[in-house]
Amino acid sequence: MELDRILRIDMTSKTITEETVPARYRLLGGRALTATMLLEETDARVHPLSPEAKLFIAPGVLGGTAVTTSGRTSFGFKSPLTGGTKEANVGGQLGHRLARLGIKALVVSGSSGTDWQRLDITNDGVSLSPATSLVGRSNYDLHRELVGEALMTRAAATIGPAGERRMAAASVAVTDPEGRPTRHAARGGPGAVMGAKGLKAIVVDDTGAPKIIAGERKDEFRKEVTKFSKMILEDPRTANLSKTGTAGVVKFVNRENIQSMPTRNHRAGTWAHADSIGGQHIEALGKERGGKMLPCMAGCIIKCAILFNDEHGNHVTTALEFESIALLGSNCEIGPADAVGELDRMCDDIGLDTIEIGNAVGVAMEAGVVAWGDWERTKALLEEVRAGTPLGRIVGNGTAHVARTFGIDRVPVVKGQGLPAWEPRTLKGMGITYSTSPQGADHTAGMVTARGATTDTLIKQSRHEQLVMMAIDSVGVCQFSNALPGDMAQFVSHRFDIAWGDDDVLRMARNGIDAELEFNRRAGFDRDDDRLPAWMATEPLPLPDGPSTFDISGEEIDRVWAE
Amino acid sequence: MELDRILRIDMTSKTITEETVPARYRLLGGRALTATMLLEETDARVHPLSPEAKLFIAPGVLGGTAVTTSGRTSFGFKSPLTGGTKEANVGGQLGHRLARLGIKALVVSGSSGTDWQRLDITNDGVSLSPATSLVGRSNYDLHRELVGEALMTRAAATIGPAGERRMAAASVAVTDPEGRPTRHAARGGPGAVMGAKGLKAIVVDDTGAPKIIAGERKDEFRKEVTKFSKMILEDPRTANLSKTGTAGVVKFVNRENIQSMPTRNHRAGTWAHADSIGGQHIEALGKERGGKMLPCMAGCIIKCAILFNDEHGNHVTTALEFESIALLGSNCEIGPADAVGELDRMCDDIGLDTIEIGNAVGVAMEAGVVAWGDWERTKALLEEVRAGTPLGRIVGNGTAHVARTFGIDRVPVVKGQGLPAWEPRTLKGMGITYSTSPQGADHTAGMVTARGATTDTLIKQSRHEQLVMMAIDSVGVCQFSNALPGDMAQFVSHRFDIAWGDDDVLRMARNGIDAELEFNRRAGFDRDDDRLPAWMATEPLPLPDGPSTFDISGEEIDRVWAE
Repeated sequence: MELDRILRIDMTSKTITEETVPARYRLLGGRALTATMLLEETDARVHPLSPEAKLFIAPGVLGGTAVTTSGRTSFGFKSPLTGGTKEANVGGQLGHRLARLGIKALVVSGSSGTDWQRLDITNDGVSLSPATSLVGRSNYDLHRELVGEALMTRAAATIGPAGERRMAAASVAVTDPEGRPTRHAARGGPGAVMGAKGLKAIVVDDTGAPKIIAGERKDEFRKEVTKFSKMILEDPRTANLSKTGTAGVVKFVNRENIQSMPTRNHRAGTWAHADSIGGQHIEALGKERGGKMLPCMAGCIIKCAILFNDEHGNHVTTALEFESIALLGSNCEIGPADAVGELDRMCDDIGLDTIEIGNAVGVAMEAGVVAWGDWERTKALLEEVRAGTPLGRIVGNGTAHVARTFGIDRVPVVKGQGLPAWEPRTLKGMGITYSTSPQGADHTAGMVTARGATTDTLIKQSRHEQLVMMAIDSVGVCQFSNALPGDMAQFVSHRFDIAWGDDDVLRMARNGIDAELEFNRRAGFDRDDDRLPAWMATEPLPLPDGPSTFDISGEEIDRVWAE
Repeated sequence: MELDRILRIDMTSKTITEETVPARYRLLGGRALTATMLLEETDARVHPLSPEAKLFIAPGVLGGTAVTTSGRTSFGFKSPLTGGTKEANVGGQLGHRLARLGIKALVVSGSSGTDWQRLDITNDGVSLSPATSLVGRSNYDLHRELVGEALMTRAAATIGPAGERRMAAASVAVTDPEGRPTRHAARGGPGAVMGAKGLKAIVVDDTGAPKIIAGERKDEFRKEVTKFSKMILEDPRTANLSKTGTAGVVKFVNRENIQSMPTRNHRAGTWAHADSIGGQHIEALGKERGGKMLPCMAGCIIKCAILFNDEHGNHVTTALEFESIALLGSNCEIGPADAVGELDRMCDDIGLDTIEIGNAVGVAMEAGVVAWGDWERTKALLEEVRAGTPLGRIVGNGTAHVARTFGIDRVPVVKGQGLPAWEPRTLKGMGITYSTSPQGADHTAGMVTARGATTDTLIKQSRHEQLVMMAIDSVGVCQFSNALPGDMAQFVSHRFDIAWGDDDVLRMARNGIDAELEFNRRAGFDRDDDRLPAWMATEPLPLPDGPSTFDISGEEIDRVWAE
């Protein structure tokens, strides 16, 4: 079975139409597909919250298959945060279910305004209906109602109060395997766009749909699936992720020769209390409190999601991940893990990007709105976001918006998007990726953590990793699978009965990146937008071998996509 | 005596240096000078509120002379509102005083942070000193203290609470001939830039300076001065301005065949209660209450400033101008004149651009923050701006910021700057000027109110008027003098003992515009930024001869500066 359905949901007329997939989209999925459709179907100058804007939702090319981690879903749109192209992808149970129903993409256009709707998709049909009873509710509550006990067949994608209010840091929450809203398409404001459409929830139930997709070469495909899983399980990186999740890295990046633990609004790269929010501490707490490692989607063998309970053994969050810990934690000088865990849960519940909010709160602390490390006041701030007070709306609209509101000129963003934890002044390859990714500052756009390499090497690595990540986000697998172009080529070849090699995968990826770059060009971006904040070149971090700034020139950075 | 001093004030080191004026600046002043210096001396990508940004303050080429209305002062900077080049010019007593002290330009760089300073300029010297006792105070209070009774020799330029908080709609208040802060360099946030420098006030006292400037050809110059004044007094437009100020136009533009009275956030172009805020009503009230027409600077023979008193004869404002009336009034459905007068005074006192704030409040009303026409709540909102509450900061940062905060996609701005009253859907030439002025939506950038002309004619008129306005803003006279290129050529020729003609004036103007366009290009603007909000092409106004939208294409608009 192919993913041969494109569902178009027009929220203005409340009509749904179905199209077959054009041949040119056959080998595209996830990010490459949403980036292409966004470019082809929308005006790059449209207001991202206007009815003329569109939201594209697509599983990856391998969605619905038995390939481990292949159930990711891409949300593509013009970002209200960056003003440019945006793709935020998410694990959870949505992708596989959409794929099993043969859905290549959902395209949401128009707006129903405040006549809030829900979209139900089953094997029997697709329908919009009033979401009156859902409006104003937060994600934990929503997923309990919309998914409930139907863990094996249902998944929801919802917006919380932040998305309803069209805040630029608003995420879309996707159901995890335990029925909780801990998976988020978070970056760049997909929740705001969904909210502007008037769409509160998408509920997919794949009861009765074929559970296995395979083509002529299903035996070769299956063999490849087994080989790929074996490779992942033998990878030492997997073992660490399966043990302490991404949080395990805190101890490492907090060292004085790395300094990649953002602290006090990125003024320092190490935090004295980092261990209190690190993976080893969380693991130890988990042993006392019934914590465990879980997959974020059925079929994932890595299981990097940390189920974190409070001291009474009650569930707090299942998404205590490194970026959330670093931005909501050390960057705001907030700890220990219990404190950060609660903030993380609140973000999931309200429907907020933890990276953006951690940066936004850091700038608010810089402005004196909240004292450094004041956890209670930070919680109160998030409650203001939920309630939609003026201050809550300021914070919910993200880092640059907070800075503008309070007249702060030291703003940790690229293309308007808040910086992830990985520090460009010590891991300079990350600075190249942050600068040149069409997504704005995004660590998942292409990790380059090599140190001591030449600028030339870093530039080539960043370009290569960005292409690989575009491919990974397009086939729809998790970056932690460490899938190589060759792995993806094998899967795609067997699935579609073609003969792809590494080059075909990278060519598809380059086309996807080019679509994103072209959209940004049309939206008004130029090379000067491919730059880190200026202060990263003038405020050094004190490394043992001397002060270190981000010192790669604009001319060098421009080589990434010019070559 | 020539204006041969450039004073550089570095706020970081608190040092002042003096330079002689380079030959290439000799014939430049006001806007042409600040635009050129901004381009030459600053990086267009710098954060407008950072220490690396600069604020340029310059009287016009005719500053200090007896030419009527020639005392205007230009404030040039990178705008925190638009992100592009900006020049906001202002009447009042500052320009002549600076010129009489031989000052071609002040260049303020760096920042003293929260160590607030005042700058005193006299014939004996220039000094910075702590402004501790001035901090937190509003403009009426400040000018009373800084100028007091010294009306004949002193003028101040100050920021109110809005500027201290670096709000993007913050103005710089300049003393009027009665010692009040009713003259504002308002558009684009000069107050925010001055605030970011740590500069609370500039006080100029020209005691002991030569009162008359004249060169070899002083007799010819004097003759020209007399001729120019006579021409102005004979112009019927002057008579209207001298009688009812700019407010007199309300009756005219509110007519159903013009519909240029913005109403309910630019949803309509006529307002049923327009007469209650119009010039004729204000004139009648003035007769009862001791109102009168005043010059905004010494030596102005037009006297378009309406001194407006309350029912007890107490002064309310001396700046009840058409744009303020339209944006704070009909656009928010607020009236009558007493209500608008009080809002206008509050804006002057807090240090806010009335056009930007009227638009910002309109969008806040659209978002449901305040009910349409709720004057009491609007006053409370302005008090929040003064106090710097979160909601106050949202509004004080301008129209687009309010829209972003509340998720509104119908935003009345061009290049981030709120629309003036003149309506592009009926006066299409204004739409061309708003679109293509490097300043963003700005009616003073080039008035084209012709109706029924071809698009080709409107484009040529807009270009011509924009050049003329650049010249007017550079020689430093008021637009209401209706000075023609020939008039300006005469004055400049006699003053500098050269032989300028119309073409020289227009060439100088084109160079100035080109400097602004180049700065904007470097700052990241492209042709797609030269556009009105999209809804102006789709939401018609109901003219008697049929619905009217702004229907001039982007290709046509791009001709303005391409030709």
